[in-house]
Amino acid sequence: MTIEAVYLDHNATTPVHPFVREAMLPWLGERWGNPSSSHAYGRDAAAALSEARAQIASLVGADPDEVVFTSGGTEADNPVLLGVELTAPRIVVTAVEHPAVMAAAMERARAGVEVIVLAVDREGVVDLDRARSQIDGPVGLATFIAAQNETGVLQPVTELAAIVRAQSPGALVHCDAAQAVGKVPLDMRSLGVDLLTIVGHKFYAPAGIGALVIRRGVTLHPRSLGGGQEYGLRSGTEPVALAVALGAACKLAAGDLEAEAARQVTLRELLWQRLLARVPDLVRTGAGAPTLPNTLHVRVPGVRGADLLAAAPAVAASTGSACHSDHDSPSGVLGAMGIAAREAMGAIRLSLGRSTTTDDIERAATALIQGLACVRAR
Amino acid sequence: MTIEAVYLDHNATTPVHPFVREAMLPWLGERWGNPSSSHAYGRDAAAALSEARAQIASLVGADPDEVVFTSGGTEADNPVLLGVELTAPRIVVTAVEHPAVMAAAMERARAGVEVIVLAVDREGVVDLDRARSQIDGPVGLATFIAAQNETGVLQPVTELAAIVRAQSPGALVHCDAAQAVGKVPLDMRSLGVDLLTIVGHKFYAPAGIGALVIRRGVTLHPRSLGGGQEYGLRSGTEPVALAVALGAACKLAAGDLEAEAARQVTLRELLWQRLLARVPDLVRTGAGAPTLPNTLHVRVPGVRGADLLAAAPAVAASTGSACHSDHDSPSGVLGAMGIAAREAMGAIRLSLGRSTTTDDIERAATALIQGLACVRAR
Repeated sequence: MTIEAVYLDHNATTPVHPFVREAMLPWLGERWGNPSSSHAYGRDAAAALSEARAQIASLVGADPDEVVFTSGGTEADNPVLLGVELTAPRIVVTAVEHPAVMAAAMERARAGVEVIVLAVDREGVVDLDRARSQIDGPVGLATFIAAQNETGVLQPVTELAAIVRAQSPGALVHCDAAQAVGKVPLDMRSLGVDLLTIVGHKFYAPAGIGALVIRRGVTLHPRSLGGGQEYGLRSGTEPVALAVALGAACKLAAGDLEAEAARQVTLRELLWQRLLARVPDLVRTGAGAPTLPNTLHVRVPGVRGADLLAAAPAVAASTGSACHSDHDSPSGVLGAMGIAAREAMGAIRLSLGRSTTTDDIERAATALIQGLACVRAR
Repeated sequence: MTIEAVYLDHNATTPVHPFVREAMLPWLGERWGNPSSSHAYGRDAAAALSEARAQIASLVGADPDEVVFTSGGTEADNPVLLGVELTAPRIVVTAVEHPAVMAAAMERARAGVEVIVLAVDREGVVDLDRARSQIDGPVGLATFIAAQNETGVLQPVTELAAIVRAQSPGALVHCDAAQAVGKVPLDMRSLGVDLLTIVGHKFYAPAGIGALVIRRGVTLHPRSLGGGQEYGLRSGTEPVALAVALGAACKLAAGDLEAEAARQVTLRELLWQRLLARVPDLVRTGAGAPTLPNTLHVRVPGVRGADLLAAAPAVAASTGSACHSDHDSPSGVLGAMGIAAREAMGAIRLSLGRSTTTDDIERAATALIQGLACVRAR
């Protein structure tokens, strides 16, 4: 089966890149082994795991032994929110975190921890001045999304981490970089964060692998109990093929991060121009904010995003995050930005990727414009 | 790199089978999609996920909507031990559970739950008469390992479940079938269990995928919080390629379960005879018990298993579980069977697999016999 639709939903998930697949394939064939085994197969697996750890660490400015493999973003975010020993019973989050962070923060809130939700402005960016006044006491943990998955808006993580540390030197700072890693340069040390979430399937590794990078010296209570793998933090046989895939995805990203970002920005702006030319009332979300190079989030006045996408099946895109599949309620992320529910219902997210071409952009623009004409003519 | 050693460590992990790899490959190439996405790519992914769920359910006598994907055994066992609402503050386990069960049970014990550890006999089998007297009050949860990972000994799960239910009709019963699924026939309904753990890399899917089968009507508190995937029980984007692999592994197993088991039993008995002929003081663990068709666990008097394996690098096997890589302490599983520490240090586990041939067995036997002569000559 071949799907003809132009895929502009890379923020939901990416295809596996041929470079990543080639790296994995031996581990789905002639190579295997449990990294804990003492024999040659085990040593081969352990060596591959180490190489992957080094590739991941290198992309985000960490050390290999700071990388803990997880099954993805949720299993990286949850242990931070639920497994950190808080030096103060207060957690700071932004209003636009991913559900894997927010749901875990709320679980902690039910256990009596105060959760401070930092407001974002109309562009979707955390307001630093307000943040300074909102963070009015000692903080145990702060967690900041690097790039918002729906809007693509980048947050001032470095500045936010500095604000938290100025107020609370003992606070731990976590960055959910699920959408940012592999798309924009990230360095844990310059960000000033202690913990960083990485998700493979957002940048060309398969779903089922991610990592939590944990600065040396930070203590987490393991949420996964058993054989004691991953420094005791994440029990369970290490998924070597997947770890190798994540390492390869990091190597791929490191190789052409800026060039590929620039290419995607050019294509994204072409898409925006094409759409704006025919839909002059189109509103671009986060137009004044820094965004991921691949993400174009727009709102179509008077039209439901879900109806528009249904009328344009030649484009595969989404109205928000893939998790947010309930098209009858507006996005909470847009709500946090002060965008009215009625307007938020007109949202569509177009997220480009490595395989996106100029031809794809032209086809997608045409399909969306025709679909919109169709919906508006009803 | 090609490793020449005969691989007899399938209980640690298996190679990915070509049938499984072929099923996965499209999902590492021309097919992709987030199953929560509404467009054609998402629907394609959701359909593949459903098919995998059906293949898994079919192998263990469950319904597709009772299957929840996890990253492996630990992430299937932990939520049962830690996420079940106990109708009585008492958990029953056997003395030979996997660390993923035992460590979680101990966590529960620290929170005040009584943990009853059922004794096993010298063969490694839970003693049913003693179990009846040990279970002397209402039970909230009972968990039984179907096949012990080190010894390969099968437990009387059906009988144990019946004993628990006779005493405590409200008890939930879990079976950790990590080593059993794909090797011996298993039917959740005939076993009489409510929850069942499945681990892909123990039967020819890659590491990083497993499942928890949950009988309809059983309530678990999710340990994974976020997007609400997998009926809200396991948030995180579903790993489609891996789920497809697990489904294919189940289909492969269902296709020739008895024939392949019989073949491996024949090879295993050949290995035992070859070894016994030259090492007459060799002791076979669980000789009088039902065991997995692929597992031969032996103890060599007066010799450390680790030394023997080091002297026989042409064989890749283990002294116990892969997790148990500390060769200086004897196996707790053997200890529970009443085997003295000194004798337990002589243990080696030889676990066969689908690709094991008669030639492999002859080579392995020769290498082990030579290695033993070498060690004993020191």
